[in-house]
Amino acid sequence: MQHAVVGRTALRVDAIEKVTGAAVYGVDVTLPRMLHGKILRSRLPHARILHIDTAKARALPGVKAVITAADMPGIPMGFMDFVRESWADCLPLKSDKVRYRGDEVAAVAAIDADIAEEALDLIEVEYEELEPVYDPLAAMAEGAPLVHEHRARNIAASLTMGGGDLDEGLRAAERVFEHTFSTQAQAHCCLEPRQSVIRPEPDGRLTLWASTQMPFILRHELAHALGLPDSRVRVIKTHLGAGFGSRMEMHCIDPICGRLAQLTNRPVKIVYDREEEFVATRTRHPFRMTLRSGVKRDGTLTARHFSVVVDSGAYLSQAPGVTSVAGGLGLALYRVPHTRFEAKMVYTNKPYGGAFRGYGNPQVTFAIESQMDIIACELGIEPAELRRRNANGPNETTPLGHVITSCGLRESLDDAQGRGSASLGPALDAARPAAGSEAARSNGRRFTRRGLGLACLFHVGGGARFHGDTDGCGVILKLDDDGSLSLISGAGDLGQGLATVQTQVAAEELGVPLDHIRFFSGDTDLTPWDVGIHASRGTFVAGNAVRLAGRKLREKLFAFAAELLEADAADLRAADGRVFVQGAPDRSVSLAEVARAAHYREGGTTLMAEAFYDPPTQLPGRHGGNSSAAYAFGTHAAEVEVDEETGIVRVVRLTASHDIGFPINPQGAEGQVEGGAVQGMGFGLMEEMRFGGGTTLNSNFLDYKFPTVLDVPEVTAHWIITEDPEGPYGAKGIAEPAIIPPAPAIANAVYHATGARVFELPLTPERVLRALREAKRASPK
Amino acid sequence: MQHAVVGRTALRVDAIEKVTGAAVYGVDVTLPRMLHGKILRSRLPHARILHIDTAKARALPGVKAVITAADMPGIPMGFMDFVRESWADCLPLKSDKVRYRGDEVAAVAAIDADIAEEALDLIEVEYEELEPVYDPLAAMAEGAPLVHEHRARNIAASLTMGGGDLDEGLRAAERVFEHTFSTQAQAHCCLEPRQSVIRPEPDGRLTLWASTQMPFILRHELAHALGLPDSRVRVIKTHLGAGFGSRMEMHCIDPICGRLAQLTNRPVKIVYDREEEFVATRTRHPFRMTLRSGVKRDGTLTARHFSVVVDSGAYLSQAPGVTSVAGGLGLALYRVPHTRFEAKMVYTNKPYGGAFRGYGNPQVTFAIESQMDIIACELGIEPAELRRRNANGPNETTPLGHVITSCGLRESLDDAQGRGSASLGPALDAARPAAGSEAARSNGRRFTRRGLGLACLFHVGGGARFHGDTDGCGVILKLDDDGSLSLISGAGDLGQGLATVQTQVAAEELGVPLDHIRFFSGDTDLTPWDVGIHASRGTFVAGNAVRLAGRKLREKLFAFAAELLEADAADLRAADGRVFVQGAPDRSVSLAEVARAAHYREGGTTLMAEAFYDPPTQLPGRHGGNSSAAYAFGTHAAEVEVDEETGIVRVVRLTASHDIGFPINPQGAEGQVEGGAVQGMGFGLMEEMRFGGGTTLNSNFLDYKFPTVLDVPEVTAHWIITEDPEGPYGAKGIAEPAIIPPAPAIANAVYHATGARVFELPLTPERVLRALREAKRASPK
Repeated sequence: MQHAVVGRTALRVDAIEKVTGAAVYGVDVTLPRMLHGKILRSRLPHARILHIDTAKARALPGVKAVITAADMPGIPMGFMDFVRESWADCLPLKSDKVRYRGDEVAAVAAIDADIAEEALDLIEVEYEELEPVYDPLAAMAEGAPLVHEHRARNIAASLTMGGGDLDEGLRAAERVFEHTFSTQAQAHCCLEPRQSVIRPEPDGRLTLWASTQMPFILRHELAHALGLPDSRVRVIKTHLGAGFGSRMEMHCIDPICGRLAQLTNRPVKIVYDREEEFVATRTRHPFRMTLRSGVKRDGTLTARHFSVVVDSGAYLSQAPGVTSVAGGLGLALYRVPHTRFEAKMVYTNKPYGGAFRGYGNPQVTFAIESQMDIIACELGIEPAELRRRNANGPNETTPLGHVITSCGLRESLDDAQGRGSASLGPALDAARPAAGSEAARSNGRRFTRRGLGLACLFHVGGGARFHGDTDGCGVILKLDDDGSLSLISGAGDLGQGLATVQTQVAAEELGVPLDHIRFFSGDTDLTPWDVGIHASRGTFVAGNAVRLAGRKLREKLFAFAAELLEADAADLRAADGRVFVQGAPDRSVSLAEVARAAHYREGGTTLMAEAFYDPPTQLPGRHGGNSSAAYAFGTHAAEVEVDEETGIVRVVRLTASHDIGFPINPQGAEGQVEGGAVQGMGFGLMEEMRFGGGTTLNSNFLDYKFPTVLDVPEVTAHWIITEDPEGPYGAKGIAEPAIIPPAPAIANAVYHATGARVFELPLTPERVLRALREAKRASPK
Repeated sequence: MQHAVVGRTALRVDAIEKVTGAAVYGVDVTLPRMLHGKILRSRLPHARILHIDTAKARALPGVKAVITAADMPGIPMGFMDFVRESWADCLPLKSDKVRYRGDEVAAVAAIDADIAEEALDLIEVEYEELEPVYDPLAAMAEGAPLVHEHRARNIAASLTMGGGDLDEGLRAAERVFEHTFSTQAQAHCCLEPRQSVIRPEPDGRLTLWASTQMPFILRHELAHALGLPDSRVRVIKTHLGAGFGSRMEMHCIDPICGRLAQLTNRPVKIVYDREEEFVATRTRHPFRMTLRSGVKRDGTLTARHFSVVVDSGAYLSQAPGVTSVAGGLGLALYRVPHTRFEAKMVYTNKPYGGAFRGYGNPQVTFAIESQMDIIACELGIEPAELRRRNANGPNETTPLGHVITSCGLRESLDDAQGRGSASLGPALDAARPAAGSEAARSNGRRFTRRGLGLACLFHVGGGARFHGDTDGCGVILKLDDDGSLSLISGAGDLGQGLATVQTQVAAEELGVPLDHIRFFSGDTDLTPWDVGIHASRGTFVAGNAVRLAGRKLREKLFAFAAELLEADAADLRAADGRVFVQGAPDRSVSLAEVARAAHYREGGTTLMAEAFYDPPTQLPGRHGGNSSAAYAFGTHAAEVEVDEETGIVRVVRLTASHDIGFPINPQGAEGQVEGGAVQGMGFGLMEEMRFGGGTTLNSNFLDYKFPTVLDVPEVTAHWIITEDPEGPYGAKGIAEPAIIPPAPAIANAVYHATGARVFELPLTPERVLRALREAKRASPK
């Protein structure tokens, strides 16, 4: 069907306010009588708190409050604390122990930030130092120091999931491959540091201004942490200086800020400095994965067994969520009838992991897609062909219960391979290592080899039923007398363009011009509920919610328009601010005329509608379940150049073919793919939080390497249009998928170029060089 | 029917924020980079503008813009400009002429208010002085100077309305009484002076923060005045430091402020000083009324003829509205079969009139109710009895088409008379003048006579279809997971308690405890439409809108509760935060449980509802029409003491019996009656804007006399419960009624005490003394 608005690139609705600097981010919020808060953090990785003396800090002029755990209600925080109390292991201010260098010990509110900082130095904490443990394998050893005393061998949680019968799958295999892969702690590197601004209201409610992905969940989390009912907290979402999952859950900063606000009865603002943003927020969880795959000689996968150690860091946070998503998705890329995923989440005395774009999937996909190329090489099957033989297809259900409706995996493989190999020629067809070509020695750099690697992805694309048993979003529409529309949505924009997509859907359904629509979101008092923006669900879930409300409103609109036009409502269409009779373009009325005709009459009405969309999915259990209403597929082809002398890898080109279902705002979707692919490349090549003796060694933008504009290769996004039956206009999620395949695609390209296989991310020059030496040792030329 | 919440006094929902000083009023709004605006006003009452030189003002450091009419789009403002273009006679900045001392000539925006003020002095305006005219009768004389050249004899507009056949009514009369009454210009005396704060948004929209009664009408007015579509303006209503009708329409300040904001691309704030608030806002229109009444000897009224001259002042503003309401209501108090109302609205070179609580009705009721006592005295009928014989009754239609449903006029008469005469004894029964008693000479004052006077009222009580053909209000309800409710209404609180009333209605319908409801209103982008708060329509119209939405939401709520309780939805009741099975109090679930059961399930939903209520009324035309869905009635008894030597009148007691239909928040309604009665007493006794040579002589709180706490008598409100069939729980409007009868009740009491009749308001000592002397002259003892 031909669409008027969706499917065409639209100007972002927030473009003007952002380029003019008018957009208000969390760090911009300033309130009258506002105090500034600072947090005292542990400088020890593991210690018992014996005594805290805050007297000197309290005495400093300008200090309005100094708090420790004794001033807090003592309610531990944890991921989805309303689902599993046992996952709540983190007090906002620590009472008994500190568990990493950065743990929150005390906090100050003062009339300015300098005084608050000065007061921190006056707080005296007496510690008893404890032996730390940093490596998760060492942490699981008998006798290792316990990070949380009640968790034996530091195992915070375990997870086993799978489908079919692993032993049967292994028996059916003709070859079994087993390799161990590991991934690192990656930082979100949001340009806006984390902040919290909380104002106590005269009636005792708290209003929190937050650059959050999930206002309603945050409302619950803050209320819970302070022992209040949800309704006593109002969350107002500001613009976000990036989310990438980091703004999915509440951090200690919020209940600390809230308590300071309650005790001083003044608004309090806390903003992290860059070091805190690195150390005291969250990382992508490092995974150590042993992947065992059973294969027939023709390449058919018969079994997959993941044995995973997740380095949770000092607290559990979202490790259970990340691990279960990694398991569910990691077992479902390709048709594998017999699977098992076993994971242990292990405490260590380090900064802890949380949600990060891809949510465990980049880790497991690195293992799977690296191993797929190893298998292809061993079996002498061309890597793309091996994938094609095992590819998921439409209208299949995986052994874990994912109901695949639309699926463009094979098409994306063909597309990426075709485009990717165009420059390298038939080289890619060979499954041999080091089959790539000589590189052009340009730019004074000494790249000697050039290669191409592929990697595929399987991800949720139709929401993810995750928080309680809901994945819904509500929307209210209000058409005003001048034909302009207020679109009031539970689902806000993180910077990814969701406001624009929702506006386009409303425009499509109601024929209101894009610039006549006012988008509003992000106030828990005023907007309908939404789970929050995560799991690439925005376009799919909020898009469907807007569509549903739009259709309800259109029905009312057409009833009045039919009167005015003396036509059957079924014959009406809305576009360009008018309702017209299909096939008779001269018979039309403006939306304003219809709105006024409905309104200005005896017994009149204004045109409003509300709707709530909850996707047809199930809360996943131990044995899986269809947690998403649609799935995203895609293939990336990475073309790299390798300097064999230094181990430096340069990505020349990333070709990203994505089954997006249908792109509602193509340029916006391209932006998502470009950003995701580059962030995935950073994960693959350079980004890594480094620790030494529990200290984060590179907690700034100078020492933490992420891709700058000089590192960014040519990235091209290509759409496989599969028009998902449940997606709005067929659309599926695209926010996370592009971050998933770059790392293995790059690793495979390095292998293709040089024959060197790197099992550990990121592919730093040191690791590549080491792999090159090993490859030379194994097969000396 | 027994109600759980409505009908019981509730704590005002805005009480805490107001008493703690947290409530933000219009004058409190402060924005980053905000400029301060000031308006240059004419110091001449009537002059041609020859030239304006702004060069020196522009050159003053800190001045960011200086504007005159040449910088404005040249669109004249007027009341309901979208209904009658011909009523638009006022440019925000005057281009050709100034028409009163205070007219807007130029404006400045500067970095602070002092610089803006200094810049005003640097603007040089060259005038050609014109002869002014101040008295409306003189203004209508042939050859009088013309305030607006295109209006011959300064008659801005005329109105004739009536029912039946006046001549027939006069023929049927046995006595015809004719008297001339006049009323003065009264000032609203809002404690918060008028303000405007306008921010230009990056996309060119304007956001106006205004202490307005009518955000949506103001949005239209400002957009229209600046030549923008409505959707380019967003109005955010702040708390109001009183309205009383003064915040019903846009004033010149808003387009001036908007244009300054557009030209400087910075937020601009203008706040009036107290003198501007008196001179440059609006007054109650002075009326000169010749009232001719035909009566049978038994007191039956047969005809009423009003001949009215309305002193409009320099511009027309709301004179047509005020005059037509005065006519419609002034002909309908009591059963009068044959009526005519003829009015001329006349321009004079004085500050101009606008909307003021009662909207013309206090003026005509002063005439009617004064004359009723004169007639009673002449016919020898006890005044209350005369009224009783002519009283409107339920289920009648007046000759002008008012469909009276509920009517407690007779009951209010009985009640007020009974209570009022309790202290004076049988004295009131006598229709003789000077029948009152000797006064107690207390407090060192020499009050010599004491008397009692009655006056009745007829007013709209079920909205007033007035602005276009709508009188509606929209509401959105959102029940959250913890059983708390967001009530998002088009209708805001002016300080009169409407937020509390709406909250009570939602609480009643849904069983949500009052303190679990968040009331939000006053943002044209976010809330449903509402005409605005005027004509005592808030409780009736918004109350019904909340009720309608509440019932829609309750239906959804009960459907899920029925599942949980395994009961029939028809047997369910909601109260105290729970849904229970009627007759089985042990079978219940909390609202939170129901909300979560609806939400956290496959295919779940959240509980929202929207509704729009438009009362079943007609847009009134030349021959009337039923513009209100219900009518308010009542009687006041005023007990006064008169010092015959000085003419000083002291009101001892005001007994106010009101047919309120049903009081939703009794204490709030009492507050409305007390405030209205005292403001009506001020109108009757002391409040009067005095002019000399076109200058407002008492434009401050020292010289303009209004009742202070020392002047306030004992006011008691008494309810006649008539349970209107259309009103929410039977409620009718109560905001204006109490201001209507005090002036004539006091005048009648003075007459009762002394035999002196005052035909001109207010009853200042001078006027009373003059009337006492005339009374003595007429009937020397």
